[in-house]
Amino acid sequence: MSSFLPKSIQTLIEEFSKLPGIGPKSAQRLAMHLLHSPESRVQGLAGAVGDLKKGLQFCNVCWNISEESVCMICANNTRNQAQICVVEEILDVVALERTSEYKGVYHVLHGALSPVDGVGPEQLKIQALIDRVQLANTEMMEVILATNPGLEGETTAMYLTRALKPFSVKVTRIARGLPVGGDLDYADEMTLTKALQGRMEYR
Amino acid sequence: MSSFLPKSIQTLIEEFSKLPGIGPKSAQRLAMHLLHSPESRVQGLAGAVGDLKKGLQFCNVCWNISEESVCMICANNTRNQAQICVVEEILDVVALERTSEYKGVYHVLHGALSPVDGVGPEQLKIQALIDRVQLANTEMMEVILATNPGLEGETTAMYLTRALKPFSVKVTRIARGLPVGGDLDYADEMTLTKALQGRMEYR
Repeated sequence: MSSFLPKSIQTLIEEFSKLPGIGPKSAQRLAMHLLHSPESRVQGLAGAVGDLKKGLQFCNVCWNISEESVCMICANNTRNQAQICVVEEILDVVALERTSEYKGVYHVLHGALSPVDGVGPEQLKIQALIDRVQLANTEMMEVILATNPGLEGETTAMYLTRALKPFSVKVTRIARGLPVGGDLDYADEMTLTKALQGRMEYR
Repeated sequence: MSSFLPKSIQTLIEEFSKLPGIGPKSAQRLAMHLLHSPESRVQGLAGAVGDLKKGLQFCNVCWNISEESVCMICANNTRNQAQICVVEEILDVVALERTSEYKGVYHVLHGALSPVDGVGPEQLKIQALIDRVQLANTEMMEVILATNPGLEGETTAMYLTRALKPFSVKVTRIARGLPVGGDLDYADEMTLTKALQGRMEYR
């Protein structure tokens, strides 16, 4: 397609095109942008990409990304270690932390069950969660299932509920309902049904 | 915003966010994608970014990007050196080359006149074009103005027409009209006006 460009530009366009959500046209534009940027900015990006995984590992406890073998959240004694919030992705932890509402710890599954895509329980950090619960196994413990409210997230939540049944822990699911600022008019039936089922006394 | 992520991920998200058309959310998703990609792919991208400008320079003649001091097009003797197609950007050369229709040479301005953005003639490779034309200055020469058919491109074309008036070269402008596959119904007035003005005898 861009065989009229020098090799190094073509290579970069190809590499950019491999990224999700970046088509050949965007990749071209990004490469051109960098070509017109000062060399320091270009090297800044190159360095940031190259160093991304340097010193990074997954937390031994919750499988969140971390600079230590145990992440800052798991290592924090002021957090409630008996409350485990199960999420699909690292970014879900970031989103929940941003609320400053949650004071427990996390467990990152790194995906959701999706038989169509060949994602079974073995591909996720499910056994690690079961081991974690088994080790504690107290009625004081709560496992909050915060997988996404879509088909795959619900399947995963359902699977986890069953897998955790043998233990005496409390298993809860985050509320589904109308988003704040949302419009009842535009809500789908499933969301409305969940919103009605999850109604609480007005105080 | 993402202060709950390790430093190296935050740095990459910041670097990605600086790129045009990539917001903080996309930057996060790109960083997460790379985090889950094999290290070889991550280093592939890092290398491609870092090596982008290695061995690249602008062609001494036409200011296109090149691996040599004179680009492959300018150095090609089979191309008509008396026909100069003036374009705004490097990617315009790529687009025109893709047609395999044009056999002349190019001149890349690296932008278009835009007083609002502080882009005057000095910021573009206009003097270089004038020098080039002056050096040849023959009636055999044609300068094809292929700047974009928008406000800035038209302004630039107009400016160049005037600047090249003292020389005996022929100055032409690429045709404006309905794009192939376009709908007359949806065309704006300016395009229709230009399409009517530029009508040619049916053969």
